[in-house]
Amino acid sequence: MTHTYALPHIERLEPYALGEQPKPGRTCAKLNQNESPYPPSPAVLEALRRMSEEALRRYPDPTAAALREAIAERTGIAADQIYCANGSSEIISLLFKLFVGPGGRAAVAEPGFGLYQTEAAGHQSACIPVPLLPDYRLDIDGLLSSGAEVIILIHPHAPTGLLTEREDLERLIRSFPGLVVVDEAYIDYAPSGSSILPLIGRYSNLLVLRTFSKSYGLSGLRAGYCAGSRELIGTFAKGGGIYNVDALAQTLALAAVRDAAYMRGIVSRVVATRDAFAAELRRRGYDVLPSSANFVLCAPPATGPDAQAIYQGLAERDIYVRHYEHPRLRGLLRISIGTDEEMGGLTKELDALAAESG
Amino acid sequence: MTHTYALPHIERLEPYALGEQPKPGRTCAKLNQNESPYPPSPAVLEALRRMSEEALRRYPDPTAAALREAIAERTGIAADQIYCANGSSEIISLLFKLFVGPGGRAAVAEPGFGLYQTEAAGHQSACIPVPLLPDYRLDIDGLLSSGAEVIILIHPHAPTGLLTEREDLERLIRSFPGLVVVDEAYIDYAPSGSSILPLIGRYSNLLVLRTFSKSYGLSGLRAGYCAGSRELIGTFAKGGGIYNVDALAQTLALAAVRDAAYMRGIVSRVVATRDAFAAELRRRGYDVLPSSANFVLCAPPATGPDAQAIYQGLAERDIYVRHYEHPRLRGLLRISIGTDEEMGGLTKELDALAAESG
Repeated sequence: MTHTYALPHIERLEPYALGEQPKPGRTCAKLNQNESPYPPSPAVLEALRRMSEEALRRYPDPTAAALREAIAERTGIAADQIYCANGSSEIISLLFKLFVGPGGRAAVAEPGFGLYQTEAAGHQSACIPVPLLPDYRLDIDGLLSSGAEVIILIHPHAPTGLLTEREDLERLIRSFPGLVVVDEAYIDYAPSGSSILPLIGRYSNLLVLRTFSKSYGLSGLRAGYCAGSRELIGTFAKGGGIYNVDALAQTLALAAVRDAAYMRGIVSRVVATRDAFAAELRRRGYDVLPSSANFVLCAPPATGPDAQAIYQGLAERDIYVRHYEHPRLRGLLRISIGTDEEMGGLTKELDALAAESG
Repeated sequence: MTHTYALPHIERLEPYALGEQPKPGRTCAKLNQNESPYPPSPAVLEALRRMSEEALRRYPDPTAAALREAIAERTGIAADQIYCANGSSEIISLLFKLFVGPGGRAAVAEPGFGLYQTEAAGHQSACIPVPLLPDYRLDIDGLLSSGAEVIILIHPHAPTGLLTEREDLERLIRSFPGLVVVDEAYIDYAPSGSSILPLIGRYSNLLVLRTFSKSYGLSGLRAGYCAGSRELIGTFAKGGGIYNVDALAQTLALAAVRDAAYMRGIVSRVVATRDAFAAELRRRGYDVLPSSANFVLCAPPATGPDAQAIYQGLAERDIYVRHYEHPRLRGLLRISIGTDEEMGGLTKELDALAAESG
């Protein structure tokens, strides 16, 4: 008999299901992980080429001070209200380590980002799933009355792409006595002014998560941050890992954040492609949720092949989209927004699949 | 009243005390964090220059397969017996999350690497300190009878630099029913054949930690790994963070491990400098523990300034070494091995400090 020496709740853990990664070198449209279809800022590549051997050889700044200063400058948040991490996935893990803990309860909108559930289970915390309303909006009252000590929201939500009304969010934050975590991974694709980052000055129970993986086109770098009161951020600084953000991530994310104009440029291209693609889908009878993110969640028309068949048909043509087994999502597809060419190719294949089945 | 929303044991947490980092641009000898005084392999810098924008833009391989294969090739361990992480510091944190847990007990030799204690406290685990013997060797029987479920060793030990006898280590692993973690951060500086990595095939309760921060000169990259039975490694793969090793770290660490000849070359220079420097110290009346690492732990002669005074005097001259408040270490200095020039400069300053006080 083998023995893992793992704790019982770890033995039982279901690992987070990652989006499929095509083999390197395979020509395909990878529209299943919400990555950017455009390269990061030329300033990032320039910073990469200029990295010194000494930056590789020495331990990085454990506080990521220069990066925090650059984020502070761009967002108007003070640098000591920002904590940087090895992707926002590390922050999600730290949330359960530092604020929820064994026996603690966090409420999440469901279906949502599965990593929250995985990390809860990994820390012996309960994750209370609060189902999305029938129209896929967040159930704010359900979250408030869930009995959890911590509420976690995604804004705009994933995998729906829906933005929650500012007043609803603020009502939740104001009336909830515990910590409210708002994951703004996709906020740069939402209409300007949608972010609730400015509210961290008003609510000491608000923590906002951001990532460089989406709008900045730096999924490979693993850089994310959170912002909140000095007390919240102090807890991360004290209880987080040491040297968790490597020297390259610090330098490259800094170059990215300083070139926000470039980021806004590629984001508007993605937004324009998203809206045009959604219109194409609707023209073909798809039901498409109005997205404020870099993906769309959509239901194929009942007259053609179903979501599962389309997912498989596309994969056979080297186009990867996301299909989930969750009961609320089984009839839907989540499609990341690529270039216009990629979306045009996808539309053509959707038509071909519909014609084949017809 | 401010409110951190943190769990009570996190509120009480003492953060790990990092070695001092001089301000950038300041000319100094930084001999307090056991970094490599020599650059990483030219192959690493070449790989850095060749990184594609796509590698930054796409999520990295979540399993770090190519890096694990390269490590496998170099060490003779199977790739599925290796888990890569964001520095071995992340593995240390995962140890407590996955194997020790709240209420669990880990035994560590003390004084040792303080991060083990910090991570234990952060996970509500007990860290049972087993004092080093009067001659600074590990107390194997004390570790075995500590009542812990997990035993953690450093081989060679830090901050002493002492290597534990192979028979003693193997006796401990063989007779202990729980998990034995052997942190080989400094093993490349020890005489060849000292590593117990080959024993993972024989003992399913043995986990060996390695890092790219020391001998490979890549502290800034945050890359480390552990090796053990497939069951142990499966637990890390399941319960560890997603995408925890970024694309740059995977590519650069791979280039480093493939150029092991370069690593061995810079390691022999460090070892030669270490042995010459230890001889210089002994000539001046210092008591120097025989080191198998890239640092020495030494006691200044009773006739001159004490360790604390030397530490401060050197810092004023922009030379940083390590001095600890721990009762067993208060009279000692831990000095990382730099270049011959740096160690020559240090020796000169030690002489000047001794002359001033005399």
